[in-house]
Amino acid sequence: MPELRYDPMTRDWVIIATERAKRPEDFASKPEPVKGDSAANCPFCPGKEDKTPPEIYAVRKNGAWKVRVTLNAFPALRPEGEAVRTKDVHGFIKMNGVGIHEVIIESPDHEAVIATMDQEQVDEIFLAYRERYIALAKDPRFESVILFKNHGRGAGTSLHHPHSQIIAVPVTPRAVRGRIEIAQSHFDQEGICLWCDLIKKEQEAKERLVFETDHFIAFVLYAPRMPFETMILPKFHSSNFEEITSEQCKELALIMKAVIGKLYKAINNPDFNYAVYSAPCREKNLEYFHWNIKIFPRITNVAGFEVGSGISIIPVVPEAAAKYLRDA
Amino acid sequence: MPELRYDPMTRDWVIIATERAKRPEDFASKPEPVKGDSAANCPFCPGKEDKTPPEIYAVRKNGAWKVRVTLNAFPALRPEGEAVRTKDVHGFIKMNGVGIHEVIIESPDHEAVIATMDQEQVDEIFLAYRERYIALAKDPRFESVILFKNHGRGAGTSLHHPHSQIIAVPVTPRAVRGRIEIAQSHFDQEGICLWCDLIKKEQEAKERLVFETDHFIAFVLYAPRMPFETMILPKFHSSNFEEITSEQCKELALIMKAVIGKLYKAINNPDFNYAVYSAPCREKNLEYFHWNIKIFPRITNVAGFEVGSGISIIPVVPEAAAKYLRDA
Repeated sequence: MPELRYDPMTRDWVIIATERAKRPEDFASKPEPVKGDSAANCPFCPGKEDKTPPEIYAVRKNGAWKVRVTLNAFPALRPEGEAVRTKDVHGFIKMNGVGIHEVIIESPDHEAVIATMDQEQVDEIFLAYRERYIALAKDPRFESVILFKNHGRGAGTSLHHPHSQIIAVPVTPRAVRGRIEIAQSHFDQEGICLWCDLIKKEQEAKERLVFETDHFIAFVLYAPRMPFETMILPKFHSSNFEEITSEQCKELALIMKAVIGKLYKAINNPDFNYAVYSAPCREKNLEYFHWNIKIFPRITNVAGFEVGSGISIIPVVPEAAAKYLRDA
Repeated sequence: MPELRYDPMTRDWVIIATERAKRPEDFASKPEPVKGDSAANCPFCPGKEDKTPPEIYAVRKNGAWKVRVTLNAFPALRPEGEAVRTKDVHGFIKMNGVGIHEVIIESPDHEAVIATMDQEQVDEIFLAYRERYIALAKDPRFESVILFKNHGRGAGTSLHHPHSQIIAVPVTPRAVRGRIEIAQSHFDQEGICLWCDLIKKEQEAKERLVFETDHFIAFVLYAPRMPFETMILPKFHSSNFEEITSEQCKELALIMKAVIGKLYKAINNPDFNYAVYSAPCREKNLEYFHWNIKIFPRITNVAGFEVGSGISIIPVVPEAAAKYLRDA
């Protein structure tokens, strides 16, 4: 059974993933190459449906699936039971590793990428995100639902076939709580949601904008953590991703494909992650928090200074990066 | 001139490194390989002293240098002037990028690594750390001094020749302030420094210990952020690294070489970072903060879940990792 452990120095929880755990001596050799790079041994390709855990959700057309969701075969957390905190004799705090870890297989095509897919296919991916996010956010055992994608080896993917992941966890991560505290304090002082305020400022400043639709906006961050880091968020106020309607979800799919397409063209299909930043799922209708998505191109390495200080060194001017993306 | 920019959503500062800035289109091609991999074109090798900025500190024996400190030729921040915060018309906050960025060249030998150096050489490196840390911490323009090392390409190094870096910054990073707030609250509640408390608990538990000397201790973290993440710290209470004596510094060099040597043997000379976590240099003699060093082997990749949630997934049990290191 995996474990969640609490770090009293940072108040972070970490997962000790015993289901995928290695013996310490396994780290003495270099890591294996990405598995399933060829479609022949890929568990996510059509015809290999028996290689994954049972299907949870799927969209089919003419009998063939277009998007498919299953439990992760090597989950970071296990779905059974209740999460219970315990303290050992020395005072170290842990919890049994209860959580739900699903995989969203984005396409039957082993080589597909969001940048070049049909818009209709991208819509189905984002509608699957919505379905599964809403379902997991309802489970009262969980405090947070984390939806994310790893594209490319440098972004931490272990399977080439295009997929995203969603993990429901029984804690509110310290990083999430920290953002909420900052947002509360901004709201208390300024009387406006930090992100609603930021959208207004970015629309005035214009120089970091990348793409806009009727209800969504994308801009390169003023103080990014990685070069080209781009935030996508609704222009209307909403604290929880699970509140998104199907119509809004398609518009989100449109702007996400547009921005990812620009990164693909402008900086040569970079490795990237994206993640949804939403309020914890037991805290609804917060006037001070605004859900958003950040895309992190993985084109520079995090080194000791970042690890030691939390300060990132960004070797490209955000306004120049945004202009380059706008023009792509 | 580089810039420091403030992110109101996280309260982090980031550096926009205009001195090393690239045009956005430079990211369209894959990064160059590590420069200076061969001693022939390495600016840190003996005989190439004119390829670095002027020497700030050196230890010589029989006329030849053993350790050498210079300004970084491509500094993240510039040493001239005062750092002044400004707010633009839209309310975005920045500061001119004032700071000092030095390189500690650890050995004349291009291929040397701490794991296999003479102890005397490692002592000289740590004594150089002490000298330069004390000097930079005295400059009233700076709030924090970050001392760190990148070993190997996967840890973000751009030059193969063994070296460390030290950067003085005009802000207290949010990550540092966050750790201080947590430590204050622990002290207020428990009446003991969080790290003094932790040392006692780890000595009782024993199972995560890696190495101990009279005045220093090393253990794998109970809730690590990376596999094999190890903390080294003084058993005596001290909040600021710059308070270390020369004698203590040699004992620190001993335990650091021992732990790095164990990682080298046990997991095959992994890429790693280490960094010193000290109180800000304008805040002295804090009863609730305890300086420490963390070594981060870079053997797994940070992916979207970590980026999105701040929760790490650790595929090795910390107690098994510690035993494996003790036995190495």
